[in-house]
Amino acid sequence: MIIVMKPHASSEHVQEVKHFIENNGLTAHLSQGEEVTIIGVVGDKKKLSGKNLELLPDVDHIVPVTESYKLSNRKFHPEPSIVKVGNTEIGPNNLTIMAGPCAIESEEQLMTIARAVKKSGATILRGGAYKPRTSPYSFQGLEEEGLRYMKEASEETGLATICEVISTSSLEAAIKYVDMVQVGARNMQNFQLLREVGRSGHPVLLKRGMAATIDEWLNAAEYIMAEGNPNVVLCERGIRTYETATRNTLDISAVPVIRSKSHLPIIVDPSHATGVRAYVAPLAKCAIAAGADGIMVETHNNPACALSDGPQSLTLPQFDELAKMLDAYAKLEGREFS
Amino acid sequence: MIIVMKPHASSEHVQEVKHFIENNGLTAHLSQGEEVTIIGVVGDKKKLSGKNLELLPDVDHIVPVTESYKLSNRKFHPEPSIVKVGNTEIGPNNLTIMAGPCAIESEEQLMTIARAVKKSGATILRGGAYKPRTSPYSFQGLEEEGLRYMKEASEETGLATICEVISTSSLEAAIKYVDMVQVGARNMQNFQLLREVGRSGHPVLLKRGMAATIDEWLNAAEYIMAEGNPNVVLCERGIRTYETATRNTLDISAVPVIRSKSHLPIIVDPSHATGVRAYVAPLAKCAIAAGADGIMVETHNNPACALSDGPQSLTLPQFDELAKMLDAYAKLEGREFS
Amino acid sequence: MIIVMKPHASSEHVQEVKHFIENNGLTAHLSQGEEVTIIGVVGDKKKLSGKNLELLPDVDHIVPVTESYKLSNRKFHPEPSIVKVGNTEIGPNNLTIMAGPCAIESEEQLMTIARAVKKSGATILRGGAYKPRTSPYSFQGLEEEGLRYMKEASEETGLATICEVISTSSLEAAIKYVDMVQVGARNMQNFQLLREVGRSGHPVLLKRGMAATIDEWLNAAEYIMAEGNPNVVLCERGIRTYETATRNTLDISAVPVIRSKSHLPIIVDPSHATGVRAYVAPLAKCAIAAGADGIMVETHNNPACALSDGPQSLTLPQFDELAKMLDAYAKLEGREFS
Amino acid sequence: MIIVMKPHASSEHVQEVKHFIENNGLTAHLSQGEEVTIIGVVGDKKKLSGKNLELLPDVDHIVPVTESYKLSNRKFHPEPSIVKVGNTEIGPNNLTIMAGPCAIESEEQLMTIARAVKKSGATILRGGAYKPRTSPYSFQGLEEEGLRYMKEASEETGLATICEVISTSSLEAAIKYVDMVQVGARNMQNFQLLREVGRSGHPVLLKRGMAATIDEWLNAAEYIMAEGNPNVVLCERGIRTYETATRNTLDISAVPVIRSKSHLPIIVDPSHATGVRAYVAPLAKCAIAAGADGIMVETHNNPACALSDGPQSLTLPQFDELAKMLDAYAKLEGREFS
Repeated sequence: MIIVMKPHASSEHVQEVKHFIENNGLTAHLSQGEEVTIIGVVGDKKKLSGKNLELLPDVDHIVPVTESYKLSNRKFHPEPSIVKVGNTEIGPNNLTIMAGPCAIESEEQLMTIARAVKKSGATILRGGAYKPRTSPYSFQGLEEEGLRYMKEASEETGLATICEVISTSSLEAAIKYVDMVQVGARNMQNFQLLREVGRSGHPVLLKRGMAATIDEWLNAAEYIMAEGNPNVVLCERGIRTYETATRNTLDISAVPVIRSKSHLPIIVDPSHATGVRAYVAPLAKCAIAAGADGIMVETHNNPACALSDGPQSLTLPQFDELAKMLDAYAKLEGREFS
Repeated sequence: MIIVMKPHASSEHVQEVKHFIENNGLTAHLSQGEEVTIIGVVGDKKKLSGKNLELLPDVDHIVPVTESYKLSNRKFHPEPSIVKVGNTEIGPNNLTIMAGPCAIESEEQLMTIARAVKKSGATILRGGAYKPRTSPYSFQGLEEEGLRYMKEASEETGLATICEVISTSSLEAAIKYVDMVQVGARNMQNFQLLREVGRSGHPVLLKRGMAATIDEWLNAAEYIMAEGNPNVVLCERGIRTYETATRNTLDISAVPVIRSKSHLPIIVDPSHATGVRAYVAPLAKCAIAAGADGIMVETHNNPACALSDGPQSLTLPQFDELAKMLDAYAKLEGREFS
Repeated sequence: MIIVMKPHASSEHVQEVKHFIENNGLTAHLSQGEEVTIIGVVGDKKKLSGKNLELLPDVDHIVPVTESYKLSNRKFHPEPSIVKVGNTEIGPNNLTIMAGPCAIESEEQLMTIARAVKKSGATILRGGAYKPRTSPYSFQGLEEEGLRYMKEASEETGLATICEVISTSSLEAAIKYVDMVQVGARNMQNFQLLREVGRSGHPVLLKRGMAATIDEWLNAAEYIMAEGNPNVVLCERGIRTYETATRNTLDISAVPVIRSKSHLPIIVDPSHATGVRAYVAPLAKCAIAAGADGIMVETHNNPACALSDGPQSLTLPQFDELAKMLDAYAKLEGREFS
Repeated sequence: MIIVMKPHASSEHVQEVKHFIENNGLTAHLSQGEEVTIIGVVGDKKKLSGKNLELLPDVDHIVPVTESYKLSNRKFHPEPSIVKVGNTEIGPNNLTIMAGPCAIESEEQLMTIARAVKKSGATILRGGAYKPRTSPYSFQGLEEEGLRYMKEASEETGLATICEVISTSSLEAAIKYVDMVQVGARNMQNFQLLREVGRSGHPVLLKRGMAATIDEWLNAAEYIMAEGNPNVVLCERGIRTYETATRNTLDISAVPVIRSKSHLPIIVDPSHATGVRAYVAPLAKCAIAAGADGIMVETHNNPACALSDGPQSLTLPQFDELAKMLDAYAKLEGREFS
């Protein structure tokens, strides 16, 4: 931590800050420049927790030099992590395709889609049983009934499964039926839910919040990991910007940035990022090219009648075609879908 | 709802869309322009729920013309609402000051602050018992112990009280002790929590999400109101933008915009909006000038040692001075603090 | 400047950076923390211009501690500046209202508006002769003819005048006719134009760019001042965010932030900030409450037929009513319009 | 254009709007819904130029249904355009690599880089002679001397050349020496410059403004094309968002969006988009995967001493390696670099 003093800070105030640091058991290194004095703070920063150094006299501002997330930080865990989900895994050795409908609508719908995406190469079936919808008057999901269909689909096809959870009760239900739970963008800072997911130990896909910085995202992962659950996979799904041509703006740079800052696997969701079917395939290819560990794509047997997010869903033949294209991209990156 | 066809849409496709509308029990009005044909859809839009008109052939895009929120919409409730909280009220007839510490730290701290802000003119005591913190390693709040201190402070001073809730269990606890619950920015789209707050019937302060549009915010209010709870007050607390000179960017325009779109009361939180103590007073004055129904301000007896958000907290004398200034602003707007 | 080394930087690399600093004639202060080593750089930073310290081995990142703008920086010029424009001035001793049409459309239109705004209390007449329009097919302004009308309006009413300039030739024309030139949001980083405005010595209103940070804005002012022109007034006019309920988002916090960082006067343009007439008055009041030195408001004798920005223009009676309200706000702030 | 009336609009006001439309020579189609009445306007919208329909009584808002850009619009020019630059071309038949230093620093520097990038596969040499820098105290470029070096480099290597222009005088100089001019992000709405570039007829690379929407970008292209210059290539270079891990946020979705809205070629600049060398290669691969017609990459023989943007520049061996990788990506997309 570095303390930057005001330009005309008196030497008394500089000394006062120095003593404050030392009285709290840390060391202060002064560096007196032509315009300003800066003070490097060395030692265990936890000793300063609850102290507001900004409010000491003549302090201009504080510059943190280390990240607040530790368990998710690549600096302390240089090797990339692998997360096992059902009988597949997500990480550096392969590429993962998660596919399925935005919302589970019926047993028949789900089974039709599950069989098709399995055939095309997906290894994880996605499907929403609890839907966070902007309006309370939109379809909210089949809840536990939907989870049961996921279980059946998994048993028949061998696909691993993932469902979003939005509360304690949906989490408790989901871990009985599916292999991985998802914390959605709107709940990325629902810290209570993060802690409960952490305590469950269940593999979790943590979507980036709509306006979350990468640091906040890794701190959200830290909430889960600090409860003893290392099985976290990150998912970039677009951030909110001023541009309205797409529903969100896919921050594709987040893939290499996360690579350099964290050891956790990262996948990309081009469907929610754009909200437009025609843009899903080019962005799915980008995900692979940028170095992601996989993608999550909405697919539907009849998008025109999908109860949620139809306009961004691929048809089953479109998904099959995409999976074939991605295979060639994966090979260029020295990876294989599995 | 208006359907805009592609420029060279065939007349077969236009007819197909028209029949689709009519087969669903609505009426379609065609308007054939020089470049494009548009189709006005008249009737109950719920009949089209789960249909994705965007995917019909030659449809370019859909333009909604009515808002999805109804209960919070001023169009259907022209008079501004009043929300009663303890023995005070929030609404057009007065101006409300909510003040208190970011986090409740001890009984003594809270009582000291409560007595002081009461004396300066606040009518509602704020204080955090459950703190949503970006890092899991930061202070997370006194929880139920903190709520008990709020109850005591209320009994001694007569102030109404408000605490943030972050989960089902904190909500259940809070409604036993405090007069109003707060749903914070990070939980604005935690729909499960919104519904539970709705079912509780308790007065609620709904903060705007960090990157929420005004429409999404009113839809979040709709979740609460749709469960039968009309006692919703909105709170603008800054939105996320590219500017880093302040923690967030106070969207002061949101005050007149909400006024025109909704009948719900709206207050402003200048403390979280800026994160800097020196900017709190000018922005508090702006809130009144813009027409807000009140403000929420962080105040602390010893900000340098506050366990949360010290740098943005006013000292008790600073708060007293601010309250005096605001009084003059309130009078200009024909209002009084109470 | 502070250099933050990577966590496991070798001591050779730390020494290499230290020597690099010293070989360039500066001093390096090492501060070795538990996780990382930081190096404070003391001396004249210009000696490092054109060196990219980020690329030295094991350097993690660089933290600047001083601002790159000097002439506009309050640290080196603590007293607020006053800028004279015609026979009025902008600064801490008064409050300035600039009013007039978005675009000058005819002599008669301009004279009608000039007389009315003068009577209501404006001291500077605004009017666009060169309009930067998003589409090339929109009305682009009367150019020099418009400037002549401004001159006439000034002679008859005694109002000072301001026009936007968008190029070398429009600048050359404008300084012959009007008292102050405006550099618009779209040209805030048109550095060539800034330099020419600087060399002209003419008073200038520098609008904030649509997505400019406050630091970039003050650096743009620096371009003008570095050419010897200290007569710079800043104008906050809304920034681009994800919210679409208003045309831009008025960053009202920019007023106190600029106050603390710069000595230059700052005014607010609520018309362009919102794009909606009904929101202009509340935001104009906010500007005064936040501590601005004045406002710029679009007014028109017949907004329904304005060739540019009609929907956000006040009618002349609306402007008169606003000016009366603002007078009371000004008094609260210990200022007077003049 | 669609006019949406207020919910309780009187039938008199609806008729008034209808007559206003008809009196201006257009046709109005009424569609009376349960909540609101909408009015479709058919005919030449130019007849309504300068009328502000928003201000007619009981009008709620206006929904445009057609884009204001015509010449750059794919709807009226379905085939993708090809732009010739020197002896190469940019468009659907090939993939173009533009490479070179951010700023031209000396003849020797430029020649060294030119020879190397030519050998690696670049076809266009970039180099800044006029640099728009945030601070007036940063290096501003060699100006005409730099342009002469570009000409020499072109003559020796056969590379086509591109330089940024920032004013009338730099444009006049540039067209004498280089094959393509660049309008940078900061000047995307410097409409005077756009018009002059249009009149020059010279091939132009139009970078997206830092906070420009795609519609504004295509309108900027329209300014150039409306002056008779069809040789416009677009360049996505990152937009401004709240995320600070990268200098800007590359909006990779802009590539497929531009493809669907415009016939103009589009390339991507991963160097400015991220500001970090390590992220350039993954994003360059994304550009190809997303369907761009090429990339522009900053390369330098000695980035540690580059006078501008060193930290994001590739070394010559890094560039060579990148070009080889991109070749494989290009083949997957059925394209070749040339």
